Amino acid sequence: MAGHKSMNDESCPVARSVDIVGDRWSLLIVRDAFDGMSRFGDFQRSLGMARNILSDRLHRLVEAGILETRAASDGSAYQEYVLTAKGESLFTVVLALRQWGEAHLFARGERHSQLIDKRTGKPIPLMAPKASDGRGLQHANTEVRKVS
Amino acid sequence: MAGHKSMNDESCPVARSVDIVGDRWSLLIVRDAFDGMSRFGDFQRSLGMARNILSDRLHRLVEAGILETRAASDGSAYQEYVLTAKGESLFTVVLALRQWGEAHLFARGERHSQLIDKRTGKPIPLMAPKASDGRGLQHANTEVRKVS
Repeated sequence: MAGHKSMNDESCPVARSVDIVGDRWSLLIVRDAFDGMSRFGDFQRSLGMARNILSDRLHRLVEAGILETRAASDGSAYQEYVLTAKGESLFTVVLALRQWGEAHLFARGERHSQLIDKRTGKPIPLMAPKASDGRGLQHANTEVRKVS
Repeated sequence: MAGHKSMNDESCPVARSVDIVGDRWSLLIVRDAFDGMSRFGDFQRSLGMARNILSDRLHRLVEAGILETRAASDGSAYQEYVLTAKGESLFTVVLALRQWGEAHLFARGERHSQLIDKRTGKPIPLMAPKASDGRGLQHANTEVRKVS
């Protein structure tokens, strides 16, 4: 969220993404939106964050085209915040965070929420980077080609 | 980085991950470490961040087991920060952020750095969530099963 940028940040897609969603609250709001949450009060209760910070983050996410507002689906005066297509495509990011957490931040046997395939009722398989021939890809087999 | 947690955060792997890497600086330090950076001064120049904040973030990443310190490989007095296996496995998260940025945060034709498969010299294919039968998986076909 800070203004300072490295020389390469303009051309680095990681840095641009992180400038937009690289803070705890924004990522948790997006997670909650994926879980079907849409109202200010629900986000506030879920995240326990100050109203002014929540308001700021929702505003930023709308500005960034990740959430959009619409009238409440029940006809009440509430406004709802829903993921746009651009926001929906953060699914891969949120899933990567989830799977890294599952693998590294829980003790063996410690219970945690799981993401389930509705069709099969089974957990989603581990997502992994693949080369164009379908082989698994380690970081060591990749390199960043900078824009000259 | 804030201390407040929702009722579900204890059992949500996304929240635990975000508590550890969900801030701009930590994610950019990890990105730079993937790019081969290892020294305080190099991170500092790359990211243009205040020394005390960089020092804090490096310390947190070491505490979290994402980076580890070692003596400089050239025999000098410098200390190096290198990714642990746990840190290396953030590759999927960083790649997801990169690919989301590439898809959504650049104008058509705007140049950006690319992640290349060293073996083929080609960009890494788009990573996508898959069901256990290999079919593509949309967010709408999944649900979170909370720990009761």
